[in-house]
Amino acid sequence: MNNEDYIARSAQLALLLEVSAYPKPGNIDRTHDFVDTSYTHFLASSVAIYPVLRKAAARENGVGELVRTGVAESMAWQRGGNTHFGALLLLVPLAMSAGACKCYEPDELKQKAEEIMRNTNVEDAIEVYKAFPKAKVKVKSEVPELDVMDEASLTELREKKLSLYDILSISAAYDLISRELVGGFDKTFRYAAWIKNAADEKGINDAITHAYLKLLSEDEDTFVKLGFGAEKSRYVMERAKEIVRGGYKLKEIEAFDEELIKARINPGSTADIIAAALFIAILSGLRV
Amino acid sequence: MNNEDYIARSAQLALLLEVSAYPKPGNIDRTHDFVDTSYTHFLASSVAIYPVLRKAAARENGVGELVRTGVAESMAWQRGGNTHFGALLLLVPLAMSAGACKCYEPDELKQKAEEIMRNTNVEDAIEVYKAFPKAKVKVKSEVPELDVMDEASLTELREKKLSLYDILSISAAYDLISRELVGGFDKTFRYAAWIKNAADEKGINDAITHAYLKLLSEDEDTFVKLGFGAEKSRYVMERAKEIVRGGYKLKEIEAFDEELIKARINPGSTADIIAAALFIAILSGLRV
Repeated sequence: MNNEDYIARSAQLALLLEVSAYPKPGNIDRTHDFVDTSYTHFLASSVAIYPVLRKAAARENGVGELVRTGVAESMAWQRGGNTHFGALLLLVPLAMSAGACKCYEPDELKQKAEEIMRNTNVEDAIEVYKAFPKAKVKVKSEVPELDVMDEASLTELREKKLSLYDILSISAAYDLISRELVGGFDKTFRYAAWIKNAADEKGINDAITHAYLKLLSEDEDTFVKLGFGAEKSRYVMERAKEIVRGGYKLKEIEAFDEELIKARINPGSTADIIAAALFIAILSGLRV
Repeated sequence: MNNEDYIARSAQLALLLEVSAYPKPGNIDRTHDFVDTSYTHFLASSVAIYPVLRKAAARENGVGELVRTGVAESMAWQRGGNTHFGALLLLVPLAMSAGACKCYEPDELKQKAEEIMRNTNVEDAIEVYKAFPKAKVKVKSEVPELDVMDEASLTELREKKLSLYDILSISAAYDLISRELVGGFDKTFRYAAWIKNAADEKGINDAITHAYLKLLSEDEDTFVKLGFGAEKSRYVMERAKEIVRGGYKLKEIEAFDEELIKARINPGSTADIIAAALFIAILSGLRV
């Protein structure tokens, strides 16, 4: 098999393992659906975007176009709405990096992915803006420059010649994924190493759910903060901290899961970063 | 996206939806692992064989070689042993048929798949024989001609110039999948139509588990018959019949699942045929 298929499969497996791991407080897993979006929608979307992941590895298109076509494919294959917008934003530059490196050594992958993001242009920004309404991502815009539902902002982007990197540098102030994308994917690579070690010890399922809780305890999730406010967001972080400090007790994780599911609080950005971390771990040899 | 990717994605999604549907008495589903083989092994294997499914759609190789490389890819990406040998035997000629038809009309697909099987040759037989020990399929050979673990049988195949079709015509006497492969995929296409209708009414999960029970009530499963004997096999069939007659009551399905899981009776061939049926249903437009 060629390099592109190896990379696309690693990325796809990362998405499937991430969404399947359970219990993952507040998020969809193999035992929890949301009202409009279900576990099977995530399965179908993971299947749908395979060709786009392979195109990314082959570096056939730019970051923006790949994200937009990835979202379009995802939406064509399932009716659950946004499943992989955040994950695609992370996986596309990482898959491009893997395709460019022809090696899967983390330091080199990280450096190349950073470079790919810095080299994005205004067309990448426009493509990602176009993908936003299609993905039906539920976000509140706090920054006028980033009102992604607004057609006028496309004109503004063109006039100001803002690259995707420029735009993400603004949203990095409040968005976890933007911070990854302009900050050299620090968390992604740190958690890739963490998961790879943990999988040997705990098995793949617990390595994923524990990594998710650990990240949730360290950084406020964008979906939670924008959707439920700063107080709730800090509360979620504190609860995650307690569970991590207590040694990831299953009963505590289950209770936290039930609490978040009931309140419909889903830390989606955190899950996206864990999927990206899994991708790096699988690329470098993690197997189930 | 091209035709090949559409076909490969339809086949991959079929595998993922089939293994995820629950409760599926006796088999792995998203809530049940076996001792050595787990749900995540099936996820990884479904990912692993994507490029082979695409090659089948592109008709790049013959049936036998595609099955053998599919098994090799599956084993390289997970450590759970045989996951998709039976499914590959069914999906490969069906994907080849879809790639040749450039249409997804069931009657044409069925006819072309039959033709592909009839046109297999001795090389296809040899390749499938080579895949058998790799797949670590647990089968008892009842027919000396079919002792697939025996190196000498490869020589015999060559001398007698037995095609894959010839070989499967022998095993069709006791093997459900062989019967599909030489019998024009009757059950596959019948259940494809059944699942497509049922999905509208019951949702995709129950459409799959009910189709599985219905098939189990109509035909003895090869894995059960060869592994546990004729009496047990008839008992499983009778129990499935009761559940179908009773209108697929969840409590009865769960009790039957628990009983089979405890006795380690897994009707694997039945699950493989349902996966193939799902592939045809998805090709012709079934969506989650």
